[in-house]
This record gives sequence, structure tokens and C-alpha cells, in this order.
Amino acid sequence: MSITFQTSSVVGQSRTGRLVTPHAEIETPVFMPVGTVGSVKGVPQDILEELGAQIILGNTYHLYLRPGVETVRQMGGLHRFMSWDRAILTDSGGFQVFSLSELRKLNEDGVTFRSHLDGSSHYFSPESAMQAQISLGADIIMAFDECTEYPAELSRVRASMEMTARWAARSKKYFEAHKSEVPWGEVSSFESPVSCSAGPLWAGVPTQGVRQPKGLSLREDTQALFGIVQGGMDRELRRESAERTVEIGFPGYAIGGLSVGEPRALTREIVESTLEYLPKDKPRYLMGVGNPEEIVEYAGLGVDMMDCVQPTRAARHGLLFTSQGRISIKQARYAQDPEPLDPNCGCRVCQRYSRGYLRHLFASNEILAQVLNTIHNLSFYLDTMRRVRHSILLGEESRSLSGIWSQPNVRPPRIQA
Amino acid sequence: MSITFQTSSVVGQSRTGRLVTPHAEIETPVFMPVGTVGSVKGVPQDILEELGAQIILGNTYHLYLRPGVETVRQMGGLHRFMSWDRAILTDSGGFQVFSLSELRKLNEDGVTFRSHLDGSSHYFSPESAMQAQISLGADIIMAFDECTEYPAELSRVRASMEMTARWAARSKKYFEAHKSEVPWGEVSSFESPVSCSAGPLWAGVPTQGVRQPKGLSLREDTQALFGIVQGGMDRELRRESAERTVEIGFPGYAIGGLSVGEPRALTREIVESTLEYLPKDKPRYLMGVGNPEEIVEYAGLGVDMMDCVQPTRAARHGLLFTSQGRISIKQARYAQDPEPLDPNCGCRVCQRYSRGYLRHLFASNEILAQVLNTIHNLSFYLDTMRRVRHSILLGEESRSLSGIWSQPNVRPPRIQA
Repeated sequence: MSITFQTSSVVGQSRTGRLVTPHAEIETPVFMPVGTVGSVKGVPQDILEELGAQIILGNTYHLYLRPGVETVRQMGGLHRFMSWDRAILTDSGGFQVFSLSELRKLNEDGVTFRSHLDGSSHYFSPESAMQAQISLGADIIMAFDECTEYPAELSRVRASMEMTARWAARSKKYFEAHKSEVPWGEVSSFESPVSCSAGPLWAGVPTQGVRQPKGLSLREDTQALFGIVQGGMDRELRRESAERTVEIGFPGYAIGGLSVGEPRALTREIVESTLEYLPKDKPRYLMGVGNPEEIVEYAGLGVDMMDCVQPTRAARHGLLFTSQGRISIKQARYAQDPEPLDPNCGCRVCQRYSRGYLRHLFASNEILAQVLNTIHNLSFYLDTMRRVRHSILLGEESRSLSGIWSQPNVRPPRIQA
Repeated sequence: MSITFQTSSVVGQSRTGRLVTPHAEIETPVFMPVGTVGSVKGVPQDILEELGAQIILGNTYHLYLRPGVETVRQMGGLHRFMSWDRAILTDSGGFQVFSLSELRKLNEDGVTFRSHLDGSSHYFSPESAMQAQISLGADIIMAFDECTEYPAELSRVRASMEMTARWAARSKKYFEAHKSEVPWGEVSSFESPVSCSAGPLWAGVPTQGVRQPKGLSLREDTQALFGIVQGGMDRELRRESAERTVEIGFPGYAIGGLSVGEPRALTREIVESTLEYLPKDKPRYLMGVGNPEEIVEYAGLGVDMMDCVQPTRAARHGLLFTSQGRISIKQARYAQDPEPLDPNCGCRVCQRYSRGYLRHLFASNEILAQVLNTIHNLSFYLDTMRRVRHSILLGEESRSLSGIWSQPNVRPPRIQA
């Protein structure tokens, strides 16, 4: 098994569902916190568990550069390396190669690029990106794509989309031939100089709260490879990209190449039109969005999975999301404010600390500011998606934003870690 | 009541005891983590609780500059401000004025200094330092002293020591006249524009595991003011300083002005000789030491309380203390090491993460590196003191270093937070 996906409630375009991967059962629509380089910045793994995160994202580009794919593989794969036994999705590396690296040279075969860390030269092809993602061992991995820049000429967008489609086929071919090499897949892949198959490291990982599909052995499981739809801001090219990607055939489909600078109305238009051409019985993943209002809106359109650095990055800059709006915690007005960040939030930060204290930590550049702010923002995002799922189950189209944050808290009881 | 102190087991010079403050019962000898500006850098308060910290230290100089004493007072005192309901000790600010600030001008009345943050001009006297510490509201506060530089001429050390003695008398006089103004002491002190007496902030603080002296109302309690012995590296001046300070009379005594650059053998000599002149029935606090071997050694000499930035600061620089010696986690040799930092450590870091992962976090400059490293080092220090107390209770002089770290783990069962 790689994954299974079943929708459970459909209201208009929006739906709830259950995505089962080798490491977790995930209720959709789901927001996936970004753990760029094997850590959701500032948040210990047990707190991610407490927040109810069932799946997080790792960036192949970053992990490839540091600590290196081979190190992660030797350590038993990304789950074991970072001690996270719920689900992980890795992106293809394509987006970062195009947004972060310098001096890239691209042709049909692949792309040569320079590391943003030290300028060293590297090469990604669909095959090598698959190899990297198989070695990292995430539950869900992504076909290698070219993320087209915005704005771009139609001819350029078409050529890029067509190459992404050819790369998708090459990605699938390589993946099918090598998927048994996942670090947790076959016993033979554990035969490395450093034994990772036992010992205090793994034994210490708490397992309560992790819903492991019953009756399945991890060794029978494989990863799932998702295809990515490109096509820039042209509805027709998006349709063609979707159809070609679906024709190749994947257990899930992503919409890439959005949130790259275009107006939000255009993002929405492309998302909505592209979703029409994606199979309703497969998970649909919108990459790299968004703010709280956007993730609610896209869930309302029928998107099942989303990820974004916004909750974590904004937190580190002191921008906090609450049910009453955004708070810039650095402002002096909060210096003597004894209230919690968000009176409607059940997270451990809002349960314990005041705005005055959080403002002080931020103004004093204390590490704890980044830790606590990030925990709260992630809690807000995950809670928002919980409210969206609740709305859909109640039969409301979650596209209606009003009321999402004024519902009674629908968090499950706190997990006792 | 301010504090009570009772020794429970005495072996040679070393002893165990129980120090009861308005906010905690503390087993001594105790190591106090340093929470400079209202946060033990990188560690959420609930994890400090889990580690078993019953008392932490705050720096008056830092808190005075940021967020400001009045803000902390308005927020209900440092305990409530930082949501820490176990014990706190604040230092007098003297050490930081002399080590961090610039352009200080000192006379009999007090000291004018410039902030290391923005160069602004400030003034501390024994009276204003007491006022600041009463507003912060720690359980234990320190008399305002001059920390003599090292090396120094004997005449200079004598003059400094004598002024510290006069300042101690002034500190006590001011404290006795104003101790009822502590934020948690009298109802009237809560009458501030911002009400801190109820609400979700304080209500959310978990209380399990906090041993609150039974039958005592906080409103009847006051802070305890400790005196500080100075006298540089001269045994005779130390004796004289101790005698003069004891003559003034305090519920506890500190040895200040050590670990300022002198050889370690000299530190030990001064500690040992000074302790002879301090009352055996009062807690004895050695300020600003030390590494793990030193805190064991000084506990063996009969010191009851110690604090040091070493576990927290070293952690942020990747230097980790283990039962098998020091580890510089940045080294490449740990890149694929699947073992925990310290196989004899029960902390949540050693129970969950590998050296390889911690090395990667540090090399990648991830926030989580500082968080996890600090948790481990504090755990090691607190566990070390637990082992020392255990040794003394077993009738062994804890001055003997060998064996302290090879004993079976004597940690109490993990507190379920």
C-alpha cells in the first residue's frame, strides 16, 4: 500500500476526507506545517504531536544540501532521523531550485544550479530528484517539475508546462522502478554501516496518539508519488497540464506554480478552474498557500491539502494570527496587556502566557519568542482547518468565511504527551 | 513568613536541606537555572517544571532595563509576568552594572551607569535596587553590593568590601520598611490600572507538581533578603566581610565576587575559608558558578545554592555536558551518530533525538538546536545536583567526584505535564 483516500462528506465543491499513508491517518482538508530542513522551525516534535499535526512537509532541496540525502538515508530515513513517526510529504525541490538557487542552467534533461549556502554546483533531474526523495523516505513525494515564473509569455508557459509533463512521466518511471528502496520499505535497505533498526533512539519515540493503520506492516508499504499541474495563469494550459498529468496517472495531484506574485483573484480563478480537471476520488494538493482566509477559501473550493511557511515565518517576525484578527506583538500597546493572545484559542501559549510577556520576549529578542509565537500560529492554522472540516461535516460550504472563527472551539481534548 | 531552612543530612562539610519559600519547597544543594530577562533562554516554563527546577534566577539589571520594573509590577510581579509559580531569586544588579554597563560612576551613595543596550543613563543605589527587586517580587532578593574586579590592590578590595557592608545595612533598612509592597504580598499592591488578579492568564497555569507550602496564604508572606560577602581573594577580608554581614543579620548569605578570572584553586580556597564564617543554620549561596565538576565540588564544601549561565550559554554554542564527558555537537563525527547524547540521561532530548539529528540542527542554525541543547544541559545540571543530594543522603561526602555520574539514574518519575 502507498496511500488510500476516501471522501466522507461533500457539500457543494468542498469535501472532507480521510487520507491514509504508511505513517498516519489524516483528516482532510489538511494544513501541513513546513519543516524545511527536518525541523518545523522552533517547535519540538512532541509539541507538533500535541497540536494534532498528522503530516508535515520537508523540503528536498534544503535536505539535499544539508545534512545531505545520504546521511538521512543512513540514519533510516527522514522519519527516524527527525524522530517523527507520523506522515511526511517532501516537495520535489523544483520550486526552491527556481526560487533560491543561483546560476541555474536548465535543459530537457534536468537543471544545474548553485547552492544558496555555499555556491557549490549541483544537478537535479527527474530521476535524481526521485532518488533523493526515495532516500528521504517521506510518505508522499512529488514529481520533479519546473515552476514557471510570473509573469511569463504564453509560449514560455506552454513550453515549461510541456516539459513538466515529460518530467512527470520520467519521475513516475524512475519511482516505479525504485520505490522498494525507501529506507523503511525493505529490510535490505537497512544494511548500512550505522545500524538504525533498534536502540534507545527509536525506542524512545512516544507512540500514543499516532494512529497507525492496523494490520499493516511498514515493510509492505511504499511511498506515494503525486503529479504536479503547471501552466502558469492560463486556464487552457492548466486544463491541458491537468489532463496530461492525469493521463500519466498518480494517486494524488498537486497544483503548483501559484502564489508566485499574481493577484489573489487570479490565484483563485486558476485553482477553481484547474480543480475541475482533477479526479474527485484522488487527493488534491494546492502547494504553497496561504494566509488563514485563503486556506479556508481553497478548502471551500475542494482542495484537500495545503502547505505554507506563513504561520511559521510570520511568527518569527512577530505577526500572530488570532480569531480576532492579526496581532503585531512587537507593538508597545501590548507591553502591559495581561490577556492571552487569543481568548478563543486552546493552545498551550494562550493557556499560559500574556500578550505583555510575549511582547517582552519579542522585544528582547529571546529565543522563546520564536518558539511560543510559532506554536500559537500553527495551532491557529490547524484549528482553522479543524473548524473547516467541522463546518463541512455540518453541511455548510466552508467557502463562507464568516463564522469559521466564531464557532465554539472544536479542538479535540488535549493529548497528554 | 519569608523563608525557612532546615538541614536534613550532614556528612563532613556537605549537607542536604530544605529551603521553603513562599512559592516552593526546594531541596538543597540546588542549582538555579538563569532566566536573565524573564526567560531561561529557549526553554518554555512547562519544560522547566518537568525538569524539576524549583527555583530560577532573574537578573535585576536586565529586567530593570527591559521590560522595566514598573511593567513587571503592573503585571503582578515576575512570577505572574512570566507565568512561573515556583520560586525565583533576583540578583542585586551589582554584578551586571560592573561587568556589562559602561561609563559607570560610583560613590558612597550609589552608582550611575549607562545601559549596554542603548547608552541611556541610569542610577542604582542600595535603596533603588531594593525598590526594583521588591517590585519584581522574587522570593529571594539580594543586597546591593559592589563586585570587586580581579586582580585588585588590597586597599581597593578593603574599601570596596567596607562599602558593600554599609550598602548591605542600607539594603536591609530599605527592605524592612518596604517589604510589604511586594506585588503578591498585599492586596493593595494589586490596585493597578491593569488588573492581574484573575482571568485566563493566571488561571491557565498548571499547578500539579508545584509543592505549595500548606496552610500558608501568599498574602502573609514576604520576600527574603540575603546579604553578600565580598572581600576579593583575601581570606582575612572575606572573614571580616562575612562577620560584618552576619552582624547585620540576614536569613541567608551569598558569596559574591568569585569566578571573576581568578584561578580555580583560589576560588575553592576562598569559598572554603569563607564558609567557615557563615552560620550553619542559614542557606549559603555561591553566586555565578560553575561547571558540573565545580558545582559538585562546592556542594561538597557545604554550599547550598548555586547559579550559572554555563549550562544555557554553552548549549547555545553547541557544548553539551554528558555523563561521559563534554560533547561539541558541531563536530562532523556526530553527523551519522544514531545514539542519544547521553545514554544515562532521562531527559526528553536524550529519550527522543540522536546525536546525528542534534548535530544537523546545530550545523543548520535551526532554532530547535538551541532549545533542545539547553533542555539537555539543564537536565544534566539538575540531575547532577539530584545525584549530589542522593550521595549525601547515603552518607557519602559529595566532594568525591568519582562515581557521581556513574550512579543509577536517581531522577524522579517524569511529571506528566
